[in-house]
Amino acid sequence: MTTNANSHAEVSVSQIQAAREIVYRTLSPSPLLDYPLLNAELGARLWLKHENHLPTGAFKIRGGLNFMHHFAASPTHHGVITATRGNHGQSVALAAQIYDVPATIVVPFGNNPEKNAAIRAFGARLIEHGRDFDEAREKVEELSAAENLRYLHSANEPHLINGVGTYALEILETLAKRGETADAVFVPIGLGSGLCGVITAFRALSPQTKIYGVQAEGAPSVYLSWRAGHIIETKDAHTFADGVATRVPAQLTFDIIQQGVDEIVLVSESEIIRAIRLLWRTTHNLAEGAGAVATAAALKLRERLQKQNVVCVFTGANLDSQSITTIFN
Amino acid sequence: MTTNANSHAEVSVSQIQAAREIVYRTLSPSPLLDYPLLNAELGARLWLKHENHLPTGAFKIRGGLNFMHHFAASPTHHGVITATRGNHGQSVALAAQIYDVPATIVVPFGNNPEKNAAIRAFGARLIEHGRDFDEAREKVEELSAAENLRYLHSANEPHLINGVGTYALEILETLAKRGETADAVFVPIGLGSGLCGVITAFRALSPQTKIYGVQAEGAPSVYLSWRAGHIIETKDAHTFADGVATRVPAQLTFDIIQQGVDEIVLVSESEIIRAIRLLWRTTHNLAEGAGAVATAAALKLRERLQKQNVVCVFTGANLDSQSITTIFN
Repeated sequence: MTTNANSHAEVSVSQIQAAREIVYRTLSPSPLLDYPLLNAELGARLWLKHENHLPTGAFKIRGGLNFMHHFAASPTHHGVITATRGNHGQSVALAAQIYDVPATIVVPFGNNPEKNAAIRAFGARLIEHGRDFDEAREKVEELSAAENLRYLHSANEPHLINGVGTYALEILETLAKRGETADAVFVPIGLGSGLCGVITAFRALSPQTKIYGVQAEGAPSVYLSWRAGHIIETKDAHTFADGVATRVPAQLTFDIIQQGVDEIVLVSESEIIRAIRLLWRTTHNLAEGAGAVATAAALKLRERLQKQNVVCVFTGANLDSQSITTIFN
Repeated sequence: MTTNANSHAEVSVSQIQAAREIVYRTLSPSPLLDYPLLNAELGARLWLKHENHLPTGAFKIRGGLNFMHHFAASPTHHGVITATRGNHGQSVALAAQIYDVPATIVVPFGNNPEKNAAIRAFGARLIEHGRDFDEAREKVEELSAAENLRYLHSANEPHLINGVGTYALEILETLAKRGETADAVFVPIGLGSGLCGVITAFRALSPQTKIYGVQAEGAPSVYLSWRAGHIIETKDAHTFADGVATRVPAQLTFDIIQQGVDEIVLVSESEIIRAIRLLWRTTHNLAEGAGAVATAAALKLRERLQKQNVVCVFTGANLDSQSITTIFN
């Protein structure tokens, strides 16, 4: 079934299954691997879902591809527009290029030049505007009206969630092929599209798995919202892990998280850095901050995970070159 | 056909094809990806063969698996033994673990502790002996006689070459699926098992592709041997890229290289470091030194490669943590 990008598509296992065929026109399934030294460190079997091996270095491309397929099948606007500082922008730019949809990405002034270059390289129009993400979004509203562009939110979009949910199906299938099941899965939360994909797939197909969301201590808006039972915004978001530096939770993903998550865990900056170093030393995969928070959280909860089968989603590798020296010094 | 590990197995396309079924019991094909920013840097389409995404972070595991399959099918000794400082040791240790073959790995004193830990973690017996690789090899000779262990050379083994050659078939097939062919392929040379796999596959299936081997300026033994037409040893090997720090070429691989390579290119230490940084910035994959020399060589020859389809083999990611700060400072 092809649903219009603007219709009220649902987040569901069947929609995630339908997204696979679309996503696999561009991607191959990412590896799910465990490493003896990392297992020993946790005292459990730790499976990494290597979303860092995808062509944009992050899981979001799965959602971008699924959205753009539906949008291109019945376009409602002259193109798409979004505001971002990183991986969402690369995902939208590459997916739009593949489906020949004009894409505009608005970033705040001072955004990392390496990230800007990556977005431009996928053929998107990059506009720098405002001092921060919220000011950049004002420009998005202006341009989407003036140029008839579809605003593509980075989380409140069922096609994005169904697209990224394809990695959750891959996890379950890879484990099943090895005769294994997951006792626990740890997923970073930016706005929660990845976690919602995992919740949707695992609650239906692996209901016994404990599902953990992970945020940074300095950016706990979804954690606070989950505890309170309603959305709570924070004034600031202090973490170098920009992929989880959320200040304002999104409604669609919050509702799914509220129903489906077992627990949300907070990790400190030093725990994230230790996890990046550990992942390098034991697996030779270099994580961006958000890509390491799942592993950081599993290590934090190691007592209760002993001898279990634990999956940590390694969501991305898009760390700028300067941060590398900071982390390894 | 199952050939005994000790019989005179041949290096051939049909043996490489036979190795695939064995290798794929453990691995999935590695991605072949191109990146717009890297293409722009070269002025050509640069495809990276991501052997860094394999479970040991390096291509050698393909050869280890193929060898160990044949050895376990008709064992001639009580186990295997080898001398190594890195990726070969991890490959032999993991493959031996999978096939339940006792493995002994001898490393020189002072070998990188992260590499030693990785080898031990795959269940191998690790022995430290001697001041350098050559002294470690004396211990191998002693133990292989005393304990009836099969000495596994890291290059003079047809099963290793046929195993690693599986990545060459993957390159050709991925390109063919996209309607592309390779104008040039660049392959790092340690002792040449990877290059020999490429030569064997490409000469048979893609004879028009120019095949380039790559060594470091400070460790040019295979380059010098190729120029001279006979094996030349060097007194030292000065490069931080330990995967290509060869002093003494191997006979079997030298003979194949001599017949099949179009050119061997030397790259300097600073060219290797620049390539590591560039690969990180444009693809967010962090290479070990040897993993970046193919890209360094392509950049060096960029004039003649303009607008071509160029494949660079990203052989490995096993850089120790300390080296990261050196490279990115």
